[in-house]
Amino acid sequence: MNTMDELLEDMIQDLYNAEKQLTKALPKMAKKCTNDDLKKALETHLKETEGQVEKLEQVCKDLGIKPTGKVCKAMQGLIEEGEEVLSDGKPSPIMDAGIIGAAQKVEHYEIAGYGTARTIADQLGHMKAAKNLEQILEQEKAADAKLNDIAMKSVNREAMQASGPAGRASLK
Amino acid sequence: MNTMDELLEDMIQDLYNAEKQLTKALPKMAKKCTNDDLKKALETHLKETEGQVEKLEQVCKDLGIKPTGKVCKAMQGLIEEGEEVLSDGKPSPIMDAGIIGAAQKVEHYEIAGYGTARTIADQLGHMKAAKNLEQILEQEKAADAKLNDIAMKSVNREAMQASGPAGRASLK
Repeated sequence: MNTMDELLEDMIQDLYNAEKQLTKALPKMAKKCTNDDLKKALETHLKETEGQVEKLEQVCKDLGIKPTGKVCKAMQGLIEEGEEVLSDGKPSPIMDAGIIGAAQKVEHYEIAGYGTARTIADQLGHMKAAKNLEQILEQEKAADAKLNDIAMKSVNREAMQASGPAGRASLK
Repeated sequence: MNTMDELLEDMIQDLYNAEKQLTKALPKMAKKCTNDDLKKALETHLKETEGQVEKLEQVCKDLGIKPTGKVCKAMQGLIEEGEEVLSDGKPSPIMDAGIIGAAQKVEHYEIAGYGTARTIADQLGHMKAAKNLEQILEQEKAADAKLNDIAMKSVNREAMQASGPAGRASLK
């Protein structure tokens, strides 16, 4: 790693691999949701993620680099954690709440990753790449906010109801 | 996973293990920094992290649960990614910029994790636990903002300077 351009290349390849992994993980999560809004949000984000993969390919073309070549270890761990949630019992509002927690961790990983890559691209004067990275960053932030919204408006309440007397008691 | 209390327990154990892992990783990152402000920020955050481990033990005591029993796979991946940065060449301002990127991903993981756990603790009426989790959340947000500040004020500029003619050209 000798230049900031090389660091940026490394970061973009990491994000590209992370998004590719996510396109495989999101359908599995959506399939287990009992809450319709959550299922729909994850399906919508899957389409967004597929668009982000294409946008990253464009960013790489503009920068004259290859998108492939890295395995994102952090996303592997995040997805493993999501799979732990999915394998722990049957689909339920409580599993939904766990899915939201896991998905928000994924979104935050990406928010940090795109934030740094966007700033470095901007500082290096790669304006088109910076703009594309900024657009993806805003999508990730919106996806995180949407998940928060679903947790607060319905899933957590449903999960309390499903938690037996102690959970229902805390709803008053 | 049958109740929201069990989900909360799982989330807190995940964060506890994540912080424990981080107390071992932060000194390695700090050791490789060439920028003094960055080194100091990571050392300060190590002390904060040690305090957070104790605070989580208190949270577990208040909730009548054990802090141990989980391995945080996501933090394992995040730390592996940080180690890739540290092993890629000699310490330099460019490595510093990579360290900041890796550390901000760690902070964002924790921001997502504590945000969810705090909300669920609050909704379950565990007010003391919710307050302690909120305090840790604010520390993580401040640590992320501090890293951003160091990147913008000094590290990225130093890294551009160290990137040869192309990097220096983008400084104008």
